[in-house]
Amino acid sequence: MMEVKLASNYGFCFGVKRAIKIAEEHQNSSTMGPLIHNQDEINRLKNSFNVGLYSNLSDVKQNDTVIIRTHGIPKNDLKNLKALDAKIINATCPFVTTPQQIVKKMSSEGYSILIFGDAEHPEVKGVQSYGEDQEDVHIVLEVADLEKITFKNNKIATVAQTTRKKEKYLEIVNALILKNKEVRVFNTICDATFENQDSARELSKEADVMIVIGGKNSSNTKQLHSICLENCPDSYLIENENELKDAWFLNKKLCGVTAGASTPDWIIKQVIDKIKSVN
Amino acid sequence: MMEVKLASNYGFCFGVKRAIKIAEEHQNSSTMGPLIHNQDEINRLKNSFNVGLYSNLSDVKQNDTVIIRTHGIPKNDLKNLKALDAKIINATCPFVTTPQQIVKKMSSEGYSILIFGDAEHPEVKGVQSYGEDQEDVHIVLEVADLEKITFKNNKIATVAQTTRKKEKYLEIVNALILKNKEVRVFNTICDATFENQDSARELSKEADVMIVIGGKNSSNTKQLHSICLENCPDSYLIENENELKDAWFLNKKLCGVTAGASTPDWIIKQVIDKIKSVN
Repeated sequence: MMEVKLASNYGFCFGVKRAIKIAEEHQNSSTMGPLIHNQDEINRLKNSFNVGLYSNLSDVKQNDTVIIRTHGIPKNDLKNLKALDAKIINATCPFVTTPQQIVKKMSSEGYSILIFGDAEHPEVKGVQSYGEDQEDVHIVLEVADLEKITFKNNKIATVAQTTRKKEKYLEIVNALILKNKEVRVFNTICDATFENQDSARELSKEADVMIVIGGKNSSNTKQLHSICLENCPDSYLIENENELKDAWFLNKKLCGVTAGASTPDWIIKQVIDKIKSVN
Repeated sequence: MMEVKLASNYGFCFGVKRAIKIAEEHQNSSTMGPLIHNQDEINRLKNSFNVGLYSNLSDVKQNDTVIIRTHGIPKNDLKNLKALDAKIINATCPFVTTPQQIVKKMSSEGYSILIFGDAEHPEVKGVQSYGEDQEDVHIVLEVADLEKITFKNNKIATVAQTTRKKEKYLEIVNALILKNKEVRVFNTICDATFENQDSARELSKEADVMIVIGGKNSSNTKQLHSICLENCPDSYLIENENELKDAWFLNKKLCGVTAGASTPDWIIKQVIDKIKSVN
């Protein structure tokens, strides 16, 4: 009989688990933007806890209960929410609150700010907003981006988007150290994404079929799938148990299972149950 | 006729030039330890300006004029000198005063201190002495040395001995960033040593004989010599013009000249004059 083995790290990170628990504890509230990139989970929160969804700040009415999602929101959006007399439930991941507070403190102490991350990502926009001098908050993804930047000070404080790669952060920070008197490096990268990847890599080396559960548009799920394919050619990306095909498991001994960072445990459980029932 | 060309950077750095000028301006004073690693220059200062030399703090008498050399001295030695009512002339290189003050300030703000450098070097001993909690001031030369260290805080401030290599400093700093929440990196490395090396490398590529002037025990002079040998097999290390040999210059077109960081200009001039007079 085929064995089914779950990766030692998979699915939701600490911040997402925490945010969902907060949402479950606040029935009849609404989240500012989708809480996670998983429509099934958003439907579940709506159906079981009447947790709704705002697309815009202008949707919020007085006395509404508003949940701020893990990414956080820009400082001014928070201020506007407060001005509306909305009840604010802050589910910003503590690992995201940290760089926000660092940027606030460092810019008030006269440091130029460098953020390593994607300028279009909500988390980065939120962190950026905490700089006191917005003209001296700079966002880069590559060492080459540094060339376009003129810092106002020769002391620089740096933070990173929580999901970025440490190696790339070091490259950028090293370039800064070589050209500036003081670089104050805050390691704000969260290990969760990489722990999921390491576990998937390890498991895919022993498994003869790998099932990766997650959104087909989710970048971290696609990355997990590509890591598994490197070691196990029979690796499949599915969004739920309905996509499973019996043929995948024919003559297989060990089926590995992992899941992207936005995949709830109950979907993972349904997939595993279905695999076990058939094989 | 053979051309003689001096490297674009050679000999004394800014701090040493400044210290010698200070010594010349303070006749009848004495330096705490030799001002530079060059006995001829120390003799010249003695003969022309009556600048003497203490080997020990205990040599100093009340009302003596004491010159502190470029490396600086430990905080307590300075305190003891002041207690003796000696007149203190501080010729500590400003590039060395900087890491001393950084260590003082950072340790008072609760940072663990890491110094990249040689624990036996007077400069490093001086910088180290400015840490408020001496048990939390750590000195390393290699990444591997970090394993033996337990920092008291998870925020660390780092400085480097001024003459160290930047690449190595980055290696050490990167290892710290990966394991600590905050690393405050101060780039205290001075470019002078490397400018001399770069210039020697460049010149030795075009020269067909290279003369390197400096102490045979001086590590920076030996390094210059070895860089020159890589590009020009006819590279010679001498301490003064008496060591020159006519045969070295036979049928040569371009003679390059460089000098270690402790070689005074007047010795360089004597060497060049002798080369020119013979060839």
